[in-house]
Amino acid sequence: MSQSPAIPSGTRDFAPAEVARRCYIFDAIRSVFHAYGFMPIETPAMENLSTLLGKYGSEGDKLLFKVLNSGNALSKLAPEDLDAPSAALKVCEKGLRYDLTVPFARYVAQYQSQIALPFRRYQIQPVWRADRPQKGRYREFWQCDADIAGSASLLNEAELMLMTDSIFEKLGIGITLKINNRKVLSGIAEAINAADKLTDITTAIDKIDKAGIEKVSAELAERGIAAAGIARLLDILQWREDSRTKLQKLRALFACSEAGLRGVQELETLLDYLDLQPPQCRVEVDLSLARGLNYYTGAIFEVKANDADIGSISGGGRYDNLTGVFGLKGISGVGISFGADRIYDVMEQLGLFPSRIGQSAKIMFVNLGKREEAKSLELAQMLRRRGIAAEIYPDPRKLQKQMEYANRRRIPYVAVIGESELQQGGVSIKDMHSGGQRFVSEAEFEKMAAEFE
Amino acid sequence: MSQSPAIPSGTRDFAPAEVARRCYIFDAIRSVFHAYGFMPIETPAMENLSTLLGKYGSEGDKLLFKVLNSGNALSKLAPEDLDAPSAALKVCEKGLRYDLTVPFARYVAQYQSQIALPFRRYQIQPVWRADRPQKGRYREFWQCDADIAGSASLLNEAELMLMTDSIFEKLGIGITLKINNRKVLSGIAEAINAADKLTDITTAIDKIDKAGIEKVSAELAERGIAAAGIARLLDILQWREDSRTKLQKLRALFACSEAGLRGVQELETLLDYLDLQPPQCRVEVDLSLARGLNYYTGAIFEVKANDADIGSISGGGRYDNLTGVFGLKGISGVGISFGADRIYDVMEQLGLFPSRIGQSAKIMFVNLGKREEAKSLELAQMLRRRGIAAEIYPDPRKLQKQMEYANRRRIPYVAVIGESELQQGGVSIKDMHSGGQRFVSEAEFEKMAAEFE
Repeated sequence: MSQSPAIPSGTRDFAPAEVARRCYIFDAIRSVFHAYGFMPIETPAMENLSTLLGKYGSEGDKLLFKVLNSGNALSKLAPEDLDAPSAALKVCEKGLRYDLTVPFARYVAQYQSQIALPFRRYQIQPVWRADRPQKGRYREFWQCDADIAGSASLLNEAELMLMTDSIFEKLGIGITLKINNRKVLSGIAEAINAADKLTDITTAIDKIDKAGIEKVSAELAERGIAAAGIARLLDILQWREDSRTKLQKLRALFACSEAGLRGVQELETLLDYLDLQPPQCRVEVDLSLARGLNYYTGAIFEVKANDADIGSISGGGRYDNLTGVFGLKGISGVGISFGADRIYDVMEQLGLFPSRIGQSAKIMFVNLGKREEAKSLELAQMLRRRGIAAEIYPDPRKLQKQMEYANRRRIPYVAVIGESELQQGGVSIKDMHSGGQRFVSEAEFEKMAAEFE
Repeated sequence: MSQSPAIPSGTRDFAPAEVARRCYIFDAIRSVFHAYGFMPIETPAMENLSTLLGKYGSEGDKLLFKVLNSGNALSKLAPEDLDAPSAALKVCEKGLRYDLTVPFARYVAQYQSQIALPFRRYQIQPVWRADRPQKGRYREFWQCDADIAGSASLLNEAELMLMTDSIFEKLGIGITLKINNRKVLSGIAEAINAADKLTDITTAIDKIDKAGIEKVSAELAERGIAAAGIARLLDILQWREDSRTKLQKLRALFACSEAGLRGVQELETLLDYLDLQPPQCRVEVDLSLARGLNYYTGAIFEVKANDADIGSISGGGRYDNLTGVFGLKGISGVGISFGADRIYDVMEQLGLFPSRIGQSAKIMFVNLGKREEAKSLELAQMLRRRGIAAEIYPDPRKLQKQMEYANRRRIPYVAVIGESELQQGGVSIKDMHSGGQRFVSEAEFEKMAAEFE
């Protein structure tokens, strides 16, 4: 009854070195989240499907993993149900978390009486999407989200930008922070006489980086935008002035667009904040930044790594009425999501992980027999009490085999306690890097422990 | 389209204070795992059902959460399938992880060429079981497992015991480590002429703590064990001697049981190791310890909290042939699982969580207007760069409202920067605990920062 072991496509196992590197990223993000006063929450992997459905568009609904009800769920179906698209809802009440924003909104609404607003929460958990797996796209992946619910102040946007800057500085990744505002996009749509086509416009220009000007232009025409409007729009998107100048030009353009002017005002306020406390990274108003179909209503932002060609590694924005669908009106939210997998890839590509990460035990004691093992156990316990990772090879195998193991595990030091070491009351320590070996007394070994720390 | 927010029964949301306390437990466990040379792996939440089915007994199979295949999965069913118990397998290929041992075994078999044996891995991840939810039993809960694959040495068992001792010492929980051996249970079954009833015996005596001697006795009779055998068995289980004496008495009893003698020998070796490096906690050979229906083949162990009546808070044992079902023969495993939820409950009950855990920001700057906010942002950034959690109330609301927020968030210090503080070049700091307030210059404030750390 043997079977060939495998995991579902689009999912991953993480080996020790990978877990350690991912933890390094999570720890850096978490420590900066804390410094900015964000507090962690965790929500269940499974949510009621009623919580998830209809929140991510009809495409999103199809990408939800649904969990079969327990018991003999399928026996509740009638034969005529089988071809109905809604059949799944008769046998599945739960689905896997698709992102961290909807569970957060559900959480705020559910515990509103216990939560002090504004609520600064972060959440680092996996999400699941039944996307077609491909390179760099997984069906299980981690998101690290920080959001503030219950305050419309643009100081929140500014703090999120400063926090993002700190996180990438800590990780050593040079970034450019691109910012825009959905109201500015509305203003542009109005200015080109296509106010009713805002969604078409954002969907199309969102692809400008990947598809290029010509394809986007064709798509806009297809979506019914007049040639003059398209030309005007593409001109705006290609402005090469600095952020402040772009905003001034928009002011002129938005003479008749209240939304547009408000968007410009919001971006100016955000830039004013960042002038007060300039981040390390480059900040740039990017009018082509649209953030796809996400339901943002104000500021939007995205992070690009300067030295890696990998798309955005973080993004977020302001969404009014965060919790309305869960019965709690008037709560505005703003947040940012850090994509752990892409950050990992950038760090790997640029060689930014410190080499100490993911080391196994600092020292391994070889096993040469019962009496030797007893002494090894004593010394290993001494190290472990000091928090130094030590292991003892558990079986008295051939020394060469034990050394091979230490090598494969990349353990930097091997302690040899044999007959002669026992007699002399000490340990021979082999530096696996240099190959050098030296004998130290037990007392010296205890002092050396600091070296392993 | 408003809906009342809720989560599936048996699942939980964790508020910031709970997440912080759970992290405290995980961090303590993780740091000791590391000191003993264990390395983390992570496996996907979803495994192929073929990996999971048949590994947990037929009861376990029923408790697996199954994930509906994507696309229009149900349309692949024929009407006559609906009442077949196997129908679910036609529409579900994946299930949620039920424990961490089977994914570990699958991992070892799948990556055998890359793994250096013995492989010391730990894994801290949630698992899901479609159990009927009840007090203290959840459908999503966390396990923290450490296992060693590929070594039969009893040093491994000893190290797991020492590690367990260190973990609970670190958490401040007084424990008793109960140990037994499946081969000893086999020996006892042979000694009472019921060798063929080993499973019945272990199942029955496993309940002795909860059900009491009489009920267990009745159950054994029901399961066809002769009265003399039951009397002999219950006598053995009630031996009150110390561990070494119990083992000596078993030696006499097992004159004709090879398995029994081997079990005694294994327990003696384990006790010998623990004599070399005595743990802090009490260690006790408990012959009634059976560990339910788990497929252990050698040592078994369980941890009880001395001062809380809550059942076992950790348990594990030796299982030969860990990976056989995945096509890799001859790999023995031994491991222990720490139950995060029960440990949490014990620590809560005994008041063992340090009070500093889960504090939100150390200091909040009130917001009294634009110029004041700019100064607050400057000082907050100074603190955050030093890793001190600071927040700024984002809106210039009434001071009382802002103070109420700081109170609800239990922020210990509030910094007030108003007109007069700006003029005098300093900050008024309110200690929210004592209610005292004092003015400090900016330079003094920078020096004070250390106090907040």
